[in-house]
Amino acid sequence: MREVVVAGVGMCKFGRYPDKEYQDLGCEAVLHALAHADIKWKQIQAIFCANAYAGMGVGHNIAALIGNKGIPIVNVENACSGGGSALRLCYQSIAAGLYDVCLAIGVEKIPGGLLDDTSWLEYERDMGFNVQPANYALDVQRHMLEYGSTLEQVAMVTVKNRKNGVLNPYAGFQKEVTLEEVLTSRMISTPLRMLMCCANGDGAAAAVLCSADRLSSKAKKVTVAASVLTSEAYGNIRGGGSVKIHNPDRTERAAAQAYEAAGYGPEDMDVVEVYDTMASGEIINGEKLGLCKKGDYGPLLEQGTFDLGGNLPVNPSGGLMSRRHPLSATGLAQIAEIVWQLRGEAGSRQVDGAKIGMAHCLGTPGNASITILKR
Amino acid sequence: MREVVVAGVGMCKFGRYPDKEYQDLGCEAVLHALAHADIKWKQIQAIFCANAYAGMGVGHNIAALIGNKGIPIVNVENACSGGGSALRLCYQSIAAGLYDVCLAIGVEKIPGGLLDDTSWLEYERDMGFNVQPANYALDVQRHMLEYGSTLEQVAMVTVKNRKNGVLNPYAGFQKEVTLEEVLTSRMISTPLRMLMCCANGDGAAAAVLCSADRLSSKAKKVTVAASVLTSEAYGNIRGGGSVKIHNPDRTERAAAQAYEAAGYGPEDMDVVEVYDTMASGEIINGEKLGLCKKGDYGPLLEQGTFDLGGNLPVNPSGGLMSRRHPLSATGLAQIAEIVWQLRGEAGSRQVDGAKIGMAHCLGTPGNASITILKR
Repeated sequence: MREVVVAGVGMCKFGRYPDKEYQDLGCEAVLHALAHADIKWKQIQAIFCANAYAGMGVGHNIAALIGNKGIPIVNVENACSGGGSALRLCYQSIAAGLYDVCLAIGVEKIPGGLLDDTSWLEYERDMGFNVQPANYALDVQRHMLEYGSTLEQVAMVTVKNRKNGVLNPYAGFQKEVTLEEVLTSRMISTPLRMLMCCANGDGAAAAVLCSADRLSSKAKKVTVAASVLTSEAYGNIRGGGSVKIHNPDRTERAAAQAYEAAGYGPEDMDVVEVYDTMASGEIINGEKLGLCKKGDYGPLLEQGTFDLGGNLPVNPSGGLMSRRHPLSATGLAQIAEIVWQLRGEAGSRQVDGAKIGMAHCLGTPGNASITILKR
Repeated sequence: MREVVVAGVGMCKFGRYPDKEYQDLGCEAVLHALAHADIKWKQIQAIFCANAYAGMGVGHNIAALIGNKGIPIVNVENACSGGGSALRLCYQSIAAGLYDVCLAIGVEKIPGGLLDDTSWLEYERDMGFNVQPANYALDVQRHMLEYGSTLEQVAMVTVKNRKNGVLNPYAGFQKEVTLEEVLTSRMISTPLRMLMCCANGDGAAAAVLCSADRLSSKAKKVTVAASVLTSEAYGNIRGGGSVKIHNPDRTERAAAQAYEAAGYGPEDMDVVEVYDTMASGEIINGEKLGLCKKGDYGPLLEQGTFDLGGNLPVNPSGGLMSRRHPLSATGLAQIAEIVWQLRGEAGSRQVDGAKIGMAHCLGTPGNASITILKR
């Protein structure tokens, strides 16, 4: 398997774009990524485009606007792990020598009205599990019981990430919030309050990947050290298998696979983007990723370990909490942040001397996607 | 690149299943394919699942019912080329040594009401191009003008395929129609009549692929000689580029790539499944695949060349015209037919001594998928 690099990344500012089509957002991200990579559109040999809501032919319609040359285009639907899955298909194809230059796109325009999350089985939807906060509420209640984490710590994740987001021009929210504002915001699913839940939104992000020998001399080298995708393991449901919560965790398995593939452990990370669709997710997932021992994330958070300027900055981009969460675009936005950090291009939120970084994303049907990058 | 085989295939009978969920159809196809391959569920290392309409987590939900072990699952949306695209991802992954055993699934439950085909750009939808028969009607009018093909020949495709479908237990329609019935059926889009248009439907098909060294001694060997995916080439639309119809054709380019990769030409084919979403499609696509010279398909059809028992049987399964067309499932149903033919398992519709076969599928966003198999 040969060395694969992320040659360039691009995204649009996430937000609400009632007057734009997803193609517009997608084109903006792609053109940014091509310029960042110093790679021409005509050099792209295959496209993997992640989307959940827009229907058929998403990657084709974006390519059509730029000018489709007839290359293979595969649209990927892997919910919130879609962006990471698209990047992984690029990575694998290039590593295996099938292509030299590939494009990963993640794009989403969130439809109006209540989102019907079809990724949950019928019996789970009947129980209300298709609403994200309900799931996370159960998880965090359990975590508080087992490890003594507090609601203040959960709120501190939001405060930290929203503070970082002020420094990110692509973040949908660039405004700090106080601990009190978070703890007194509207209750969504006990104990999670509104400012502990990320907002969805429209957006696109893209990455150009190539074999190391194709990297332009004008682009800084960021190598893919690992790209892993797992799904949740559980038994035959109709046969009376166990439910998800008791089973080997997808993030823990993905992390183990990623660290083994990369030859790095959590202790080697300089900067990490952790999936914080709910503020509690950063705590629980951060521990599953091995960034600290189980139960230690909250106390370390209080000490500033995960702040910009701390020992291990987590979500320097502001995370989903600041960026908003256009499902399939999120994974590639996280990867874009890590690439900018490793290239020293993250401006006022730069993590000094960052050499190794990781992006972690979950998808509701039971995916976990982890990408480890190094410069 | 190492040798990759289709170890086994399976499908359910295509039809209308108001009382079943797509998971039921998917499981049925997967369990058939595993049994046909003599491969156990736990041997599967990755799943690529094609679907267009069911929302998020389709492959995950099917795997959950059988028992998900946590392997990578990627859902693919490539419209009617989805099944072929899923197979191609399996093929490439195994050929490159990323996995040894993969599963391709194509599954669809057609939603009620008018289908909003989002694979067409807005200006095309405004012009009515999102309705399949309108597109094909323009194409066949042009073909009749340029090559002198006749409406009787178009109708003969339906008659031939519906005759073959009687012999296929998985076909949604197993009843012959007469030339007169086709030519007097309700007009849909001049000159195409109802019985020249395939019906959609619910269904699933699956294929287990593995490296040649993993093939069970109980399964007959069918090697993937080529698996190609192209997209339609056209210029920058907003920049005033040309429209699709004037551009290099996706099927012609895919065929050229597939023949080169396989080392076989159209003259080597013993049996072919051609995408006949409209009866005229078999004529036009058959010629683009090089099965005969441009303009010769109609006359050869009249002579019985493409009949079961003819020189080159086309759509021995009955094609989309008999099977029905559950978008993402169709490509893998075509491939299943070729596998059965090459294994000598096609029963009363067996093409004697078939050694090399091809499946061709289009997808409305501008895909063409071609798979060449050999025993």
